[in-house]
Amino acid sequence: MKFDTVAILGVGLLGGSVGAALRERKLAKRIVGIGRNADTLATAKSLGLVSETTTDLAEGVRTANLVVIATPVDKVVEHVRQVRQHCSAATLITDCGSTKRDIVRECTGKAQQQSAIFVGSHPLAGGEKSGSSAARADLFDGRKVVVTPGKDQTNDDPAVQAIAEFWAALGATTYFMTPAEHDRALAMTSHLPHVVAAALAKVTPAADLPLTATGWRGTTRIAAGDVELWTQIALSNHDNLLKSLMKYQQSLSQFVDAVERKDARQIRNWFTQAKERRDAVES
Amino acid sequence: MKFDTVAILGVGLLGGSVGAALRERKLAKRIVGIGRNADTLATAKSLGLVSETTTDLAEGVRTANLVVIATPVDKVVEHVRQVRQHCSAATLITDCGSTKRDIVRECTGKAQQQSAIFVGSHPLAGGEKSGSSAARADLFDGRKVVVTPGKDQTNDDPAVQAIAEFWAALGATTYFMTPAEHDRALAMTSHLPHVVAAALAKVTPAADLPLTATGWRGTTRIAAGDVELWTQIALSNHDNLLKSLMKYQQSLSQFVDAVERKDARQIRNWFTQAKERRDAVES
Repeated sequence: MKFDTVAILGVGLLGGSVGAALRERKLAKRIVGIGRNADTLATAKSLGLVSETTTDLAEGVRTANLVVIATPVDKVVEHVRQVRQHCSAATLITDCGSTKRDIVRECTGKAQQQSAIFVGSHPLAGGEKSGSSAARADLFDGRKVVVTPGKDQTNDDPAVQAIAEFWAALGATTYFMTPAEHDRALAMTSHLPHVVAAALAKVTPAADLPLTATGWRGTTRIAAGDVELWTQIALSNHDNLLKSLMKYQQSLSQFVDAVERKDARQIRNWFTQAKERRDAVES
Repeated sequence: MKFDTVAILGVGLLGGSVGAALRERKLAKRIVGIGRNADTLATAKSLGLVSETTTDLAEGVRTANLVVIATPVDKVVEHVRQVRQHCSAATLITDCGSTKRDIVRECTGKAQQQSAIFVGSHPLAGGEKSGSSAARADLFDGRKVVVTPGKDQTNDDPAVQAIAEFWAALGATTYFMTPAEHDRALAMTSHLPHVVAAALAKVTPAADLPLTATGWRGTTRIAAGDVELWTQIALSNHDNLLKSLMKYQQSLSQFVDAVERKDARQIRNWFTQAKERRDAVES
């Protein structure tokens, strides 16, 4: 056993999957699911995602060696604050938030030196389904997790290493990035794709849906994701997202220009560059 | 057996799959693969996609009851003309082209009344892989095929019905649309998605590719498709594609505007409309 007690705040897809993975890999003796809704917690326990549950955050984190905060990105800062009021100074805290600058700035640094240590994380796992019923023990297996040390942390800090090892123990490949690097890169690789997919779903007339095939469906699949989550991501990472969108709009305009001029050579070059970039990653 | 002899011009993904499906379903005694490249034809035969092959178009179509033209969209009109020079007047001809106005206008109508009958088709099947090695007997199973009668044809014409029955016999669900309706709808459900996906792949910096996850990969998958095919589609359906792109760009601009103003309510509405449209189709 790697941990005596792990507390998980929020037992939805990510939190529930952390619990399921810890149980399946026998990495923790006690896995405490914490949430506000007793029914949701009961479901998570009945699915075997956690070993016990409580609606009392103070009680849930008191003896935890590790607290994983898996609540919506706009709630993480407040939840870290609450956890710190009740856990021991030796407890490690991490999160699963999709944007990292705001969270890491608020939760790390000199002002927090007497408190339990927080290290930001972003597991690149999930999908368009949410809730504990979608949780799976293998959700992080072979996936990537970005660990984002704060200004006063380094990749070699024992706490930062411990959080990276935690995700690696769940089967993930870990990357270290600064919060700023993370937010810039993820705007391109995760947040922009969501907007691109959503816009396509949004503009397709309902009457044309019967004629959609695998292409439309694959391209729009992520548009079914949780609206509130993506609204908070767009707000939190608005500067990087706007920069990515501007690049995207410029590229579309180049294509429109080539089609308006029926310039086969330019259309071909544009598609070729896209194909080469896509071919550089596995399917 | 439904057919004595079916000739297939072009034994790539679509043509090869037509052959494989005909064989598996025992719908034709002879399935003749026709092409310019003897090696490609030999491969198709060794894969069991066709029962015989020839590089001589005249010989290949002479005794065919049905000729399926599965060559690139910009070659179909010329191939229909060539097939008509050598097949009997009782032969039925169809194609697999992704755009239909040009092809159906050139290949049907009063000028062709003494020739073999052509009925345009578009099987909504395929994908980012091409070539006979990707052909499969179940490619059309459960997929959609749009049959597009010309101005002088009706849905009830025996030839139009026969072509619809042909695709249904391969497992597809058939739809009848005019070529103009087809090209307008497919611009939205197939051609726009390809451009949207390609633009996303194109603007993602190579250095960020290691951080792409299932979202980016699903959204960009079709960008790996055949460049020449998509170039010809963009040229052939340029007017409808430009209209779809304009709607798409307007929707993106609405989103950019909402993010610039950090208008959570408008961002939420925008994502909600997209999710509702996506949720209206199966995954």
